[in-house]
Amino acid sequence: MAEQLYDVVIIGAGPAGLQAAIHATRKKTRVLVLGRAENSALYGAHIENYAFVGGIHTGAELLHIGVEQAKNFGAEISCEDVLKISNINEQFHLKLENGREIATRTLIFCMGVSKKKLGVPGEKELLGRGVSYCVDCDANFYRGAVVTVTGDRSAAVDGALTLLDYASKVYLVTDTLNVSKELLARLKASTVEWIASTVKQVNGERVVQSLVLTNGETLETEGLFIELGSKGALELATQIGVQLDSESCKYIEVNRKQETNIPGIYAAGDIVGPPYQMAKAVGEGCVAGMEAATYARKLRETMG
Amino acid sequence: MAEQLYDVVIIGAGPAGLQAAIHATRKKTRVLVLGRAENSALYGAHIENYAFVGGIHTGAELLHIGVEQAKNFGAEISCEDVLKISNINEQFHLKLENGREIATRTLIFCMGVSKKKLGVPGEKELLGRGVSYCVDCDANFYRGAVVTVTGDRSAAVDGALTLLDYASKVYLVTDTLNVSKELLARLKASTVEWIASTVKQVNGERVVQSLVLTNGETLETEGLFIELGSKGALELATQIGVQLDSESCKYIEVNRKQETNIPGIYAAGDIVGPPYQMAKAVGEGCVAGMEAATYARKLRETMG
Repeated sequence: MAEQLYDVVIIGAGPAGLQAAIHATRKKTRVLVLGRAENSALYGAHIENYAFVGGIHTGAELLHIGVEQAKNFGAEISCEDVLKISNINEQFHLKLENGREIATRTLIFCMGVSKKKLGVPGEKELLGRGVSYCVDCDANFYRGAVVTVTGDRSAAVDGALTLLDYASKVYLVTDTLNVSKELLARLKASTVEWIASTVKQVNGERVVQSLVLTNGETLETEGLFIELGSKGALELATQIGVQLDSESCKYIEVNRKQETNIPGIYAAGDIVGPPYQMAKAVGEGCVAGMEAATYARKLRETMG
Repeated sequence: MAEQLYDVVIIGAGPAGLQAAIHATRKKTRVLVLGRAENSALYGAHIENYAFVGGIHTGAELLHIGVEQAKNFGAEISCEDVLKISNINEQFHLKLENGREIATRTLIFCMGVSKKKLGVPGEKELLGRGVSYCVDCDANFYRGAVVTVTGDRSAAVDGALTLLDYASKVYLVTDTLNVSKELLARLKASTVEWIASTVKQVNGERVVQSLVLTNGETLETEGLFIELGSKGALELATQIGVQLDSESCKYIEVNRKQETNIPGIYAAGDIVGPPYQMAKAVGEGCVAGMEAATYARKLRETMG
């Protein structure tokens, strides 16, 4: 059961998400932002091309200001990752990393794009032939196989647990884990074998055969799932039927109101496609925040 | 003949125009912004909902920063109004208020929306029955008639001169004139009669019959053209065939790349429709600036 009902839940705390929060709260709606500003692509950037902010500023500095603005207008901000979204009775239910479940009238996807690769020999060469960046897309190809997941956040742990339903053996290779206590407990109670090391090289003729780890071991595996971020943005979106752009299937498709194909779900920022610019993300966040808040208020009035 | 050739000319110096200039110059294009920041709707506003700018700031203060940014990146800024645009050999030729003509490979319309009314008795009641906000749209209805234009900028003077081709008598009612020397000279050389006063009331049963002026005079007229701003944004756009939205015919229609129906012409900010928010204008300006610059560079490479 959902513990809380929000008008607008925004996933992602970068420029699109924070601007969406600012505009949604100002329409007197209950707003939650799920995300960590330090995961935004802006965080490590230096910005000099954002109009009306003179000089050169670090992304970290700007994001700090944006988070304070959103909070001052009344948005709640939480750093929990989302593991699952379902659509129940015109509300969206979100299962969070720490096990709790919340509900919302509208959702805005602002998780940016993941450009995270391992950057090791063999990764690029064996992509699609054992190397995958999406458990939910490819798990089914590994029925009865030995597979390995690498990554230190919720996407990796959740991916490893999901793969237990398909694979005969699941390894998780990571030096550190940065996940909630609850998710860690689920991992420890499972048959996933955690190897405290990192992947140095992917070996294989035509298909993945083994991994060389930094601890010197060679690990035989048929699949390597690289899940370096939080729960993959596009996986979450497509789980509930959000449509991607027909050309590249890499971005969420939206119209000029930032609406997706599902009523009540909006998207803004890098996740809807290039240019990957802070100013663009802010503009789209503004529109998405206003549209979502208006939609949520209408639902509130008609459904009580 | 055009004196200068630009890659990108941006009409309007508000948030959309300035952000467009920043992003276009950074792609190493020759950029000109035509407009005055103090004509932006932002100028008189107080802003607290623009992400990453904490506190409350005046629009004037922010616009000052934006103008400096655009200049620092290499954009030229000029406060001249545009009187006419024509499409010649894949270039757009702009006739400016001071008489000179420039050419550009691409154009971005960022002139916002005009909400300027006189606010006098009779204005609203007789709208469309003698009261008009668009010389280019309605001049033809006043063949052989006595008409009056009010306004103190280029739109009013240019409108009065245009009406000479239609009306039997043209009055210009305004206390002050804020136009270029050249336009003032053309006005003085014409048969337009300038009355140094302002309109206090519009009189008429069913149609406009006369105006009461603040100097006590009553001026008989069949038409009152209210042209308070610079040359009307939509008039300029539609002159060269830019398509408006089919629903209200009040906004320039654009796609997600801010492209209009005419290749090389883009639009951003309030002029493409609500919400009238600084953040939205900035986001659209960013996209328009990048798209226009890319388009101009391609033309430059293929056509020399």
